[in-house]
Amino acid sequence: MDRQPRGQTRGGYAKGDARREAIVEVATEVFGTLGYRSATMLQIAAACGISRTGLLHHFPTKESLLEAVLSRRDESSFTVVPLPTGTSDDDRAALQRLVTLAQHNAESPTIVNLFSVLSAEAGDPDHPAHDFFARRYQALRMGMEQSLHRLQQRGALVSGTDPQMLTVELIALMDGLQVQWVLSPDQIDMAAVLRHRINTALVRALD
Amino acid sequence: MDRQPRGQTRGGYAKGDARREAIVEVATEVFGTLGYRSATMLQIAAACGISRTGLLHHFPTKESLLEAVLSRRDESSFTVVPLPTGTSDDDRAALQRLVTLAQHNAESPTIVNLFSVLSAEAGDPDHPAHDFFARRYQALRMGMEQSLHRLQQRGALVSGTDPQMLTVELIALMDGLQVQWVLSPDQIDMAAVLRHRINTALVRALD
Repeated sequence: MDRQPRGQTRGGYAKGDARREAIVEVATEVFGTLGYRSATMLQIAAACGISRTGLLHHFPTKESLLEAVLSRRDESSFTVVPLPTGTSDDDRAALQRLVTLAQHNAESPTIVNLFSVLSAEAGDPDHPAHDFFARRYQALRMGMEQSLHRLQQRGALVSGTDPQMLTVELIALMDGLQVQWVLSPDQIDMAAVLRHRINTALVRALD
Repeated sequence: MDRQPRGQTRGGYAKGDARREAIVEVATEVFGTLGYRSATMLQIAAACGISRTGLLHHFPTKESLLEAVLSRRDESSFTVVPLPTGTSDDDRAALQRLVTLAQHNAESPTIVNLFSVLSAEAGDPDHPAHDFFARRYQALRMGMEQSLHRLQQRGALVSGTDPQMLTVELIALMDGLQVQWVLSPDQIDMAAVLRHRINTALVRALD
């Protein structure tokens, strides 16, 4: 009954949404190849097959487009790696999901390269994504550290493992693997290396 | 007797060398902040306090300047981390020197950021530093894997450790730590995390 009016309204939104989504997809590729700094709105518009004015209608600044690209990347990661809810099984499952995420990333060279380039560029305090990345890593560390602490308290980590150190280490490992993998995809198995490291830290290996 | 003529000749070279070195230092900073792609020769010349023509006299292309920046970074790393010569003690010492290199890097944010940005940008096969980085990582992996294999044969690695996986892992860990450290230098102790990981892989911890 309410199908037609909602359908119509949605039709309008859906068209705009689809256009926005297509732009964000192209921008992901352009930022990932050229870097945020050297990519221009004109290049992105051309790659989308629209005018610069058309692009500015959806994203008035390059910063706003970057923001959309970054939050889309986070959505797609969190779909694969939901946060653990606090039981030991959940914490083991969260580690397993990191391995799954690494496998998943190996199918998305564009987004992996985007992320490597942007997180490195964002080291400069003046970069528009600096705060985004600083906060994002802090949040990632906080969540993972709690998870690893619980595993340690349950005796699931091999003795001598510091959960705080292991947290920083696993996040760094995932980032660093991407750099080597993008350069030599045939030689680097990101998921296998990550799983090997996680298993050496666990009393009982992942399934 | 040959002191004066050599002195004079050297004086000429020395001046040119000093100028080149000063340019390379400035370019390291500019590439590290803006990335290779978006930095211009004009910006680098201005930051050096010379004209664009003056800069082109020393480095006719941006690629040639990038090459000089990259080989300088390699020289300064290899001063800190000489290659092992093949005994077990040398191989343990090589791991210790990785930790020393991480400490050393924590005093050089400029060169660390340059390296993170360039190695990520270089994921694009069209980037002028793509082959440099692909070859560099291959050489690094080859050297470290031999070293870790020898340690394993001597029973120095904890059981279940795969030297090839550990090689990719340690290099990735060093790269990934730099990303988190540049964003939050007060929260990340690169050398401590690296040492913690190396020690969990060794039967007898580093001194």
